[in-house]
Order: sequence, then structure tokens, then C-alpha cells
Amino acid sequence: MPDVSAVVDGYIASWNETDPERRRQLVEATFAADASYVDPLVAADGRDGIDATIAAVQRQFPGYRFALAAGPDLHHDRVRFTWHLVPDAGDAPVAIGQDFATLATDGRLRAVTGFLEQVA
Amino acid sequence: MPDVSAVVDGYIASWNETDPERRRQLVEATFAADASYVDPLVAADGRDGIDATIAAVQRQFPGYRFALAAGPDLHHDRVRFTWHLVPDAGDAPVAIGQDFATLATDGRLRAVTGFLEQVA
Repeated sequence: MPDVSAVVDGYIASWNETDPERRRQLVEATFAADASYVDPLVAADGRDGIDATIAAVQRQFPGYRFALAAGPDLHHDRVRFTWHLVPDAGDAPVAIGQDFATLATDGRLRAVTGFLEQVA
Repeated sequence: MPDVSAVVDGYIASWNETDPERRRQLVEATFAADASYVDPLVAADGRDGIDATIAAVQRQFPGYRFALAAGPDLHHDRVRFTWHLVPDAGDAPVAIGQDFATLATDGRLRAVTGFLEQVA
């Protein structure tokens, strides 16, 4: 069973990996087969849907990367963490989000919910 | 369908209502029949389990009340908010928590997950 930190690192890496084959490997390692992802802007089901959603976000925000900013905090099968979207050159976030997720029995992410914070 | 603010206000009110009958009415108005609640310290299923958990916490922390501190933030069927546990006389929190929940189709809380923050 993968450590929750490894799973969350894999999640962040999935969002940053623009090579389709490597990204898909990260998505499979990180998300359960029946995983879902929902944030204020999108909703995606399954690894295919999640992979396509990540690819679309990458096309929309070239030159940025996601970085883990707080957490993961874990109890039972629930995890939360905060991320920053930062320019490739720099670390001032242009977007900040908080994700909550439930974990599948094998430790992968099952239901991920993202919230977006106000950025000053 | 109840407004999410009304549901979250009812949730906070449930935690503060020590009269068993009134508390149970608030729990029924606020939680779906198949609701669950889990935080780092407890896990409860159904309205009976949730009501018993709230009653136990009230016995453990007499002289304190819960107050909504941020949110609720809502998108899709997902909500999050932050609460403070404060003394009846005063408003300096002795505990801070963040709750994340999914909503049932009728707008009541279905799966509630609480996280506890570090209090300085």
C-alpha cells in the first residue's frame, strides 16, 4: 500500500507531467480505477477522464507548475492538502487550491474535490 | 431544497444544542438518513451515531460552543467550512477545525470529514 505522501506527490507530478505516456503512468499509479475529480470548473470520472482533464489544464496554463504547499493531512481514509500553481521560473503562486480526497483500500486516490482560494 | 448556508448553520447548531430532543430535530434536518461523520478522533454512522457522538463531545467540553469561522464554500455537491470552538464567554478559539462534506440530493449533509488545525 503506497504511503499517502507518495500518492500525493504522484498526484502533483501527474498535473505537471506533459508527456502523455508518463502522465498516464502517473495517473494509473495515483488514482483508483473508479476515481473521480471535481473542482469548481471541471468534473471528471475515471482515469481516462482525469487524464484528459489534466491535459486540458496543461494546455490552458503552459509555463506553470503545481507545487505542494501544505499537507498531506491524513486520518482514516481521508486526506487534504494545499497546492500552489507557480510559474516555471519563480515561486509566487498565481493560483492556490485545497484538495480533499478519499482513498481507495489500496491507498490510491478515489474521490478528489478541489477548492480554489482567493489569490491576492 | 435547503440552502447550503442554512444546512451548515443547522450543523453548527446541532453541535451546540444540548437539549436531546431539539438536538435530534436539528440532526434530522441537517444530516441525510445515511449520513456519516469522521474526524481524527471519532467515526459515526447514521443520525443515531452522529447524535450520540455530538452528545459525547458536549459532555467532554461543557462551557464551549462552536462558531462558523469561514465558508461555507460550495460547488457541485461539495462544501467546506471552518469552525472555531470558543468558550461560552469569549471568542478566542481553543480548537479550530475544517469540515468538508458531500451533500445528498435533498441538500442535507451526507459524508462529513473533519480535520483539526494546530491552535497556537
